[in-house]
Amino acid sequence: MTIANYISQILSRSSWIRRMFEEGTRLKAKHGAGNVYDFSLGNPNLEPPHEFKAALQQAVMNSAAGLHAYMPNTGYPHVRQAVADYLCQEQKMPLTANEVIMTCGAAGALNVILKALLDPGDEIISPVPGFVEYTFYAGNHGGILKTVPARADFTLDIGAISAAVTAKTKAVLVNSPNNPTGQIYSEESLVKLGMLLKNKGKEVGHTLYLISDEPYRKIVYDGSKVPGIFKCYPESIIASSYSKDISIAGERIGFLAVNPQAAFKAELLGGMALANRILGFVNAPALMQRVVASIQGASVDISVYTRKRDLLCDGLADCGYQFVKPSGAFYLFPKTPLPDDVQFVQALQEELILTVPGSGFGGPGYFRIAFCVDDSTIINAMPGFKRVMEKYK
Amino acid sequence: MTIANYISQILSRSSWIRRMFEEGTRLKAKHGAGNVYDFSLGNPNLEPPHEFKAALQQAVMNSAAGLHAYMPNTGYPHVRQAVADYLCQEQKMPLTANEVIMTCGAAGALNVILKALLDPGDEIISPVPGFVEYTFYAGNHGGILKTVPARADFTLDIGAISAAVTAKTKAVLVNSPNNPTGQIYSEESLVKLGMLLKNKGKEVGHTLYLISDEPYRKIVYDGSKVPGIFKCYPESIIASSYSKDISIAGERIGFLAVNPQAAFKAELLGGMALANRILGFVNAPALMQRVVASIQGASVDISVYTRKRDLLCDGLADCGYQFVKPSGAFYLFPKTPLPDDVQFVQALQEELILTVPGSGFGGPGYFRIAFCVDDSTIINAMPGFKRVMEKYK
Repeated sequence: MTIANYISQILSRSSWIRRMFEEGTRLKAKHGAGNVYDFSLGNPNLEPPHEFKAALQQAVMNSAAGLHAYMPNTGYPHVRQAVADYLCQEQKMPLTANEVIMTCGAAGALNVILKALLDPGDEIISPVPGFVEYTFYAGNHGGILKTVPARADFTLDIGAISAAVTAKTKAVLVNSPNNPTGQIYSEESLVKLGMLLKNKGKEVGHTLYLISDEPYRKIVYDGSKVPGIFKCYPESIIASSYSKDISIAGERIGFLAVNPQAAFKAELLGGMALANRILGFVNAPALMQRVVASIQGASVDISVYTRKRDLLCDGLADCGYQFVKPSGAFYLFPKTPLPDDVQFVQALQEELILTVPGSGFGGPGYFRIAFCVDDSTIINAMPGFKRVMEKYK
Repeated sequence: MTIANYISQILSRSSWIRRMFEEGTRLKAKHGAGNVYDFSLGNPNLEPPHEFKAALQQAVMNSAAGLHAYMPNTGYPHVRQAVADYLCQEQKMPLTANEVIMTCGAAGALNVILKALLDPGDEIISPVPGFVEYTFYAGNHGGILKTVPARADFTLDIGAISAAVTAKTKAVLVNSPNNPTGQIYSEESLVKLGMLLKNKGKEVGHTLYLISDEPYRKIVYDGSKVPGIFKCYPESIIASSYSKDISIAGERIGFLAVNPQAAFKAELLGGMALANRILGFVNAPALMQRVVASIQGASVDISVYTRKRDLLCDGLADCGYQFVKPSGAFYLFPKTPLPDDVQFVQALQEELILTVPGSGFGGPGYFRIAFCVDDSTIINAMPGFKRVMEKYK
C-alpha cells in the first residue's frame, strides 16, 4: 500500500457523520437542496452575531504593522488575557493569561492536550455515546481511547469510569453539553468524578487528568447551567472554541485552559505550547484571535435553538419517538424503533431525511439529529419521520 | 512525570530558534528594542502587499450567509480551483482543484502529508542544513527523519541521499529555496533525484515520494528560478504557504498539491483529507482561504529583500565572513570563524546581535542570520559583527 496502513484502515471505515454528509450532497444534487432534510452535520445555520461582524470589520480596518505576523505560539498576550478574564467569571476562580493557550478550534486544543500528555499505549477514558473523533485524536499521539457507557439517561456512570481505570490511564475526557445526547453533567457528578480521579491517581501513582471539551457551553436551554470544571477537580483542562456559540466553525479559533491549581501546571503549559508548534498549528489564526478577544461572552441568539429544539421534540414525541430532551447543544439522540440503527437511518434517507446512526457515536440503537437547521426543515421533515416510525414501530 | 516522556525530552532540548527568540525578548526588555539586533526568527518584517489588504476588506464586506461555517475538509472548491489554476502555470502541467487541499500553512500541510504516508518506523530523508522542525513533524506520526549532508555549496548530494535509502524509506523531503542556506536546487539535480527515487523505489518494492516544502518559492534573487517539482518526478507532493511571500505567517494559510500523475493519487488525497480532519485542523481558516484565492501570484516587493541581502552580504564580506550568497529565501548561513557555533553565537549576543547556531539546523560550524529585518538593523549591527570576527579570526 502507498499510504499509511492505519490511515488506509480508517479511510475504509470512515466517520458516519461525513459519510452522511456526502450522501446528503448526492441526494441534494438529485432531488434539489430544498427537498432534502439534512440533519447530519453540526454546522450551525445561524449567522454570527452582530458583535462578531462589527469586531471583524474593526480588526480589518486596523492599519498597525505586523498584525498578520507570527506572535508567540501560545497566542497574543492580550487575547489570552481577555479569555482568562472571561474564564475567571465562568469558572469562579482567578486565572491569568499564562494559563490560556489560543488554538485552532477545540479539535486543535484536544490534539495539543493529548500530544502533551500521552506516551505510547496510554489510555484515555471517555463516556459513550460520545464524539467519534476522540478515538482518532487519542490514536494520533499513540494513545488508546477506552469508551465506557453512560447511564440510560446519558448522565455520567462513575462506577463504569472507575472500573475502566488502569495503570495506563492518563485522563478522562468528558464533553458537556454532550454531542450527541445534549446532556449536561451535574456539578455533583463532576465532583464525584474528581474524587474518583484523585483516589485512583494515588492508587496508580500518577496524576489522572480531567479534560473537558465544552464548545457547546453557551448553548443551553430552560435556564440550565454548565458547572465549571475547575472547581470540581484541580487537575483539569478545558478545551473549547467559538465554532458553535459564535457560528464560526470554519475559522478554526478556540483555546485551552489549564486549572491554575494543577500540580504540574508549568510542565503542562510548556508541553502544550510545544505541541501546538510541532503539530503544525504553530499558532491560532492571528486575525480571529484579535476578533474573539473583543467579544468575550457573545453568542448567537440561543432562543432560536430553543425554538428549534421544541419544534423537533414536540413533533417527534407526537410521532411516537422516545428520547431524553436535550438540556444543551443542538443535537437530539432518540431511540430507533428497530435495533439496527444503520437500517433505520437508511429508511429515513428514503424519505430524504439525513441523520447519523448512533453506532457512529458508540450508541447503537439510537440516531442523531442535528437541529441547527432552518425551522422549515424540521417542520417539513415531520411527515417523513412519522411514516418511518409507523413502518417500524 | 506528568506529561509525555517524548514531549518532556524535547522541551529540555528545544529549538534553538525559539530559545534565541526568548533571549532576544529578555535582552530587548533590558537594553531597549532599538538597541538589540534581532536576526533570529523568519518572521517577515514587510507588511502584506496592498492586494492582500484590499482582498481582506472586500472579503469582510461580503454579507452572504455561511461564510464562516464549515466547508469540505479539503477547502472551498473555488479556492482550490484558484490555487490549481495558478499551479498549472507554475508547474507547467494541467492541475485540477481535486489535486489541491487547503491547509493551516506549510507546517500544517507537512503534518497532513506525513500523517497520511507514515507507518511506525518509516523513514523520511532530508538534506541538512535544513529546517529543524522536520524531525518533530516526522516523529509526530511515528516516523524517523534521517538527515543527509548537502554538498559544501549546500546543493543536493544525490549520492548521500542514495546511500541513505532503506526498505523503511517512504519519502525524501526537500526545501528549496532552503531555510537556512538560501540555496535553490537546480532542475538538473531534482531530475536526478527523481530518477534515483524511481530506481530505488523498484528496489525496495514501494513508491518513494518526493515532498517539496516551498514557502520561499517567490522570494528569489538575481533572476533565479525555482524549478517545478512536478515535471521532475511524478510521485511528488508540494507543501506551501502564503506566510512568507504575502507576509501573513500568523494567519496559518497554505496548501498541499499532489502531482496529477502520481500512481496512487486518489489514495493520497483521500488519506490527506482524512489526516487534515483528524489531526484537528479540520479545515484551513475560512476567511483567509477566500482572501488568498483572489490574490494568486501576489507577493511583497522582493526587491526590498534583495537590498537587505546585498547590504548584509557586502557588509559581512568586508568583515571577513565566508558564506554562499543566497539565491532565495531571507536567510544567510555563514561559517563561524571558530568551530563551536554555539559559543560564537553567544559572543554575538554580547554585542546584542541575535542569530541562531547552525547546530540547530544540522549545520554545526555555521550560523543563521534571518535578514527579514529593517535595513537599519543590518547597518547598525555591522560594527558588532566586525568586532566579534576580529576577536576570533
